[in-house]
Amino acid sequence: MIYFNCDYNEGAHEKVMQRLMETNREQTIGYGCDDYCEKARKLIREKCQAPEADVHFLVGGTQTNATVIAAALRTHQGVIAAQSGHINVHETGAIEADGHKVLALPSEDGKITAEQVEKCYVTHVSDGAFEHMVQPKMVYISQPTELGTQYTLAELEALSAVCRRNHLFLFVDGARLGYGLMAADNDVTMADLARLTDVFYIGGTKVGALFGEAVVISNPYLKEDFRYVMKQKGGMLAKGRLLGIQFLALFESDLYLEIAAHADKMADQIREVLYQKQIPFLVENSTNQIFAILPDEILDKLSEKYCFSYQERIDETHSAVRICTSWATEKESVDELCKDLAEIS
Amino acid sequence: MIYFNCDYNEGAHEKVMQRLMETNREQTIGYGCDDYCEKARKLIREKCQAPEADVHFLVGGTQTNATVIAAALRTHQGVIAAQSGHINVHETGAIEADGHKVLALPSEDGKITAEQVEKCYVTHVSDGAFEHMVQPKMVYISQPTELGTQYTLAELEALSAVCRRNHLFLFVDGARLGYGLMAADNDVTMADLARLTDVFYIGGTKVGALFGEAVVISNPYLKEDFRYVMKQKGGMLAKGRLLGIQFLALFESDLYLEIAAHADKMADQIREVLYQKQIPFLVENSTNQIFAILPDEILDKLSEKYCFSYQERIDETHSAVRICTSWATEKESVDELCKDLAEIS
Amino acid sequence: MIYFNCDYNEGAHEKVMQRLMETNREQTIGYGCDDYCEKARKLIREKCQAPEADVHFLVGGTQTNATVIAAALRTHQGVIAAQSGHINVHETGAIEADGHKVLALPSEDGKITAEQVEKCYVTHVSDGAFEHMVQPKMVYISQPTELGTQYTLAELEALSAVCRRNHLFLFVDGARLGYGLMAADNDVTMADLARLTDVFYIGGTKVGALFGEAVVISNPYLKEDFRYVMKQKGGMLAKGRLLGIQFLALFESDLYLEIAAHADKMADQIREVLYQKQIPFLVENSTNQIFAILPDEILDKLSEKYCFSYQERIDETHSAVRICTSWATEKESVDELCKDLAEIS
Amino acid sequence: MIYFNCDYNEGAHEKVMQRLMETNREQTIGYGCDDYCEKARKLIREKCQAPEADVHFLVGGTQTNATVIAAALRTHQGVIAAQSGHINVHETGAIEADGHKVLALPSEDGKITAEQVEKCYVTHVSDGAFEHMVQPKMVYISQPTELGTQYTLAELEALSAVCRRNHLFLFVDGARLGYGLMAADNDVTMADLARLTDVFYIGGTKVGALFGEAVVISNPYLKEDFRYVMKQKGGMLAKGRLLGIQFLALFESDLYLEIAAHADKMADQIREVLYQKQIPFLVENSTNQIFAILPDEILDKLSEKYCFSYQERIDETHSAVRICTSWATEKESVDELCKDLAEIS
Repeated sequence: MIYFNCDYNEGAHEKVMQRLMETNREQTIGYGCDDYCEKARKLIREKCQAPEADVHFLVGGTQTNATVIAAALRTHQGVIAAQSGHINVHETGAIEADGHKVLALPSEDGKITAEQVEKCYVTHVSDGAFEHMVQPKMVYISQPTELGTQYTLAELEALSAVCRRNHLFLFVDGARLGYGLMAADNDVTMADLARLTDVFYIGGTKVGALFGEAVVISNPYLKEDFRYVMKQKGGMLAKGRLLGIQFLALFESDLYLEIAAHADKMADQIREVLYQKQIPFLVENSTNQIFAILPDEILDKLSEKYCFSYQERIDETHSAVRICTSWATEKESVDELCKDLAEIS
Repeated sequence: MIYFNCDYNEGAHEKVMQRLMETNREQTIGYGCDDYCEKARKLIREKCQAPEADVHFLVGGTQTNATVIAAALRTHQGVIAAQSGHINVHETGAIEADGHKVLALPSEDGKITAEQVEKCYVTHVSDGAFEHMVQPKMVYISQPTELGTQYTLAELEALSAVCRRNHLFLFVDGARLGYGLMAADNDVTMADLARLTDVFYIGGTKVGALFGEAVVISNPYLKEDFRYVMKQKGGMLAKGRLLGIQFLALFESDLYLEIAAHADKMADQIREVLYQKQIPFLVENSTNQIFAILPDEILDKLSEKYCFSYQERIDETHSAVRICTSWATEKESVDELCKDLAEIS
Repeated sequence: MIYFNCDYNEGAHEKVMQRLMETNREQTIGYGCDDYCEKARKLIREKCQAPEADVHFLVGGTQTNATVIAAALRTHQGVIAAQSGHINVHETGAIEADGHKVLALPSEDGKITAEQVEKCYVTHVSDGAFEHMVQPKMVYISQPTELGTQYTLAELEALSAVCRRNHLFLFVDGARLGYGLMAADNDVTMADLARLTDVFYIGGTKVGALFGEAVVISNPYLKEDFRYVMKQKGGMLAKGRLLGIQFLALFESDLYLEIAAHADKMADQIREVLYQKQIPFLVENSTNQIFAILPDEILDKLSEKYCFSYQERIDETHSAVRICTSWATEKESVDELCKDLAEIS
Repeated sequence: MIYFNCDYNEGAHEKVMQRLMETNREQTIGYGCDDYCEKARKLIREKCQAPEADVHFLVGGTQTNATVIAAALRTHQGVIAAQSGHINVHETGAIEADGHKVLALPSEDGKITAEQVEKCYVTHVSDGAFEHMVQPKMVYISQPTELGTQYTLAELEALSAVCRRNHLFLFVDGARLGYGLMAADNDVTMADLARLTDVFYIGGTKVGALFGEAVVISNPYLKEDFRYVMKQKGGMLAKGRLLGIQFLALFESDLYLEIAAHADKMADQIREVLYQKQIPFLVENSTNQIFAILPDEILDKLSEKYCFSYQERIDETHSAVRICTSWATEKESVDELCKDLAEIS
């Protein structure tokens, strides 16, 4: 069985593992205060052109989202997100468990617009019933989104502007950021994210690390006491250096971007065959996730050999599936899949 | 200015006030353990034909909703409600503040169907991604709804059945219950509610009391430790007897129903004029709230004399407003309003 | 049976009831935005010599404590209190339910000192393990305390100074404030409280009102969005005027202080007899609560006629009980109790 | 600098790292549902002689404590612990952040007794003021404790009995369990823990793993929906196999116990020298943590070469420090420290 169902089926990139092995018996202090973490922070600040930013390392995505949002919001404040947003659907209510309503906006492609945000804000705070409704205080988006789509620089700038005008924090979930940065039609850089957001994170778990996400905080208000919240939410790893070492391995060269580019290229190869076969897509994108609509009988056949992620039923005889590549996807596997797809009649 | 904007503009019915005065200097024990509360509980159990039910008195609606839901749900469980439901919109995230996601279903008329509930349940627990999504565990509806509409007995029975089949608690918010029970087309009794729900409440604040809601719990699981949660949420009134005395005044005769019937009748009189003038409604109903769509210029004129509640903009020249009657609405005020409405050209 | 067990056995002072009756059928807007509330706020600001203070009305003590603390603290911050403090013992974990640790300090008489606070603060933030421990951010005291004792002006000033030096909010729970203000040895005024604290409240439930507490906020940071938190915690009464009207009745004359003085005088009369009989006290104080240590056999006898509140076992044959007077305590009842106490052999 | 300050200064045991390297490029499904996790679970069940137990893997200690407690308690229930317990002091209020009060009992040596638990329970639920106080529902202890002491089998049995009699869950934090199991005077086995507790965990982070704790649940009530709570608290690792593989490496042979025995032996060697030099201890124990009281001037000298953990000031010229060994402690380092300690005059 070849797995194309998600981007966390394997361990870590060999260079990451090697660094962990090399440093394994060194003694360092704990909780992310060691030199490896410091070096990794410095590198990330440089890549982001954000010398003033705070950088923190957490273990996984749900934890990171919950920690950032808990650190940012007071008890009566909510976070605006796309209805399909990870925090709204697939985190078992982690945000609500911390006391915050997710104000979900409709979205076909996983993205929300500056106009939607403005309207949601106005509805909640300007209709004369202020304190009877949750106060929107943050906007959460993913880059790329759950559906593999991306915000353009212009869209990000518009979102950033509406947030700043209305005192909303802009938070970007970058669990798959690498795959977004290296996508064919991307025009957003890490420096843009640092400049336009209040806080965002660079995903490691899905892009070459064993685990780990690097939170980059630009807004001074969000910096205060962030480590308290990390600790309280169980997000302060005793051997914090494990995170620093991994991000060091990914960022001391261009490894992070190179392996992400590989995944996108592998996805493009699959996409190309699907185009040729005139297979429709649930949503078009250019990152490492492909949402293809296939006849059930063909899916049954393919599933003897490949594992995809079931997305949703389209009609009586068709379903949408997610075909996912990653830093670890092997060319041979993709060639084989492409060959089998090309033979679809 | 005559207020038709809501149903809590005045104090309490005279008989309620009289009972509070009569008992004012009596000494009783606190926290709802006095004889007045006991008597009121007994009366309510009788009216509900629910001799086994637990009855608790709380001060207001948001508090009651938050307390019942906190008492019922574990940390990863959510509550299904209409998108327009009070807990989803107008309680400043009180349910989320206690850690529970509100799973909002679309609704035009404030009601949700058994089919919608079933589908929501299945989506959350049966797609192979169980623990990544909130577990639905309760269904919250209002009778009447925020839009003054009502569930028929058949609809309630269908909801109850789908809830019992899927181990979901059914909770009915009866903040305006009296106005529902006495509405022209109602076929639901308090006994039906006690029989078909796990927990519901009888609203006093909006129906003749100074304040107070009576929670009726049928499901034994929900009875356990309920007073702990009341106390913790600040819902255990020191002078608990104030609630018992008020409900005693409302239920030792048919006062509760009589004054609710008055409000419905007053609303019917207004509705009649609107029908005659072929004024459209945002939603049709037969309880004490009327959602009329009126030209802005007429609204401007009426607002010199009457206070309505602004609901929403319909188009460039029309708005929907809520016209609300209550137990305290005076016939003279309604006659005057009807006369003015009849003169709309 | 004559009740001396607590100070909330009766309804409200007649002048309060009268005002509620007079205004009963008036129409006002809801949620504390009516003119009665505005007038009451103005009076309270004047009594406190705090023209800039925000004043909010809530229904009960637990709710008030939970709301103030939730509004003040972020998720990783805790509140310092005496081990015997109401929030630490008798609120069913309401503060923890909102996510905040109560940092309890030992206390014999219900009071804590500036030195204790300083030491607790230093232990938590200055030992190089900052973020692994809760960050103290508020000090909670009661005036009078749970044991009827009082802070002197000098003690309050010392506490206020240590709080301001360390950026801790000082919050005074005044559930029984009237009884403290009028106690024989008191040297603290409401103006002192407004000046020295960040927030405090004036208790109505136990001092002449049916229910209600008036929160006085001096610190601008705590003013922001307070009504949001009130609403979310279920503390925003629909008919908010009920609170305004009651506080108006209590403060438009010196009624609040006069009825409190009566309770203290009644307690003094009982205390006098106990002194004469050389009955020891669990703790000495001069407010409306008396903590007397009596032989069990005498308590058994007295309990045929009087209801006290059992406090704790002292030794095999003695117990401490709380004897409580209030604004409603009748002179005849006290005379009778004193006579019976005088006959103890 | 040689670090004796804690037991998480290094990476993981070589055999653990080797297993991670070997399996690195394998494709498995996520979230702990892979075969490695299954095998590790099976092994742990066998070692615990608990074929019915559920086993879950989490990343770190704070997260594990918070998740277990959140899964076990309802909103008004609290957890009894020693005042020095990790959840009470060093988790930044994580338990309170989830809404639960820690009911702290005094303890000199980090342990609490069955008698203390019984008394605390009775105080909270049997004094006629039930619902005004938190309801104790769980007892939390550590084996070994924060102070390196251990419960004997008899003590554990007494605690278990008092818990079962009063419907309290017994939860044992085994962050350092290996060091306890292999200590010279230990008479408790993993099977005893599985038999006597409702839930306990086997610490990996401090005993040979890169990170990871294995939760063993015996009580069926606590098994239900545990994975939901894990996910919600950010404790469900995407690449869950990383945890399974590590525990497999530790438990497929006796590696876990062997490396723990090494740490205890290293500690015994240091202890022996301290005994000879008649250095007093803050508390006596036989596990991998030593709490020695040393003159400040000697500590200053030692700290040029060694890093200890500062515990507390004893008097003007003496301090207690924690000297910690681990699975990774090298014999040469201990020999050197012992030599230096032996030369103390």
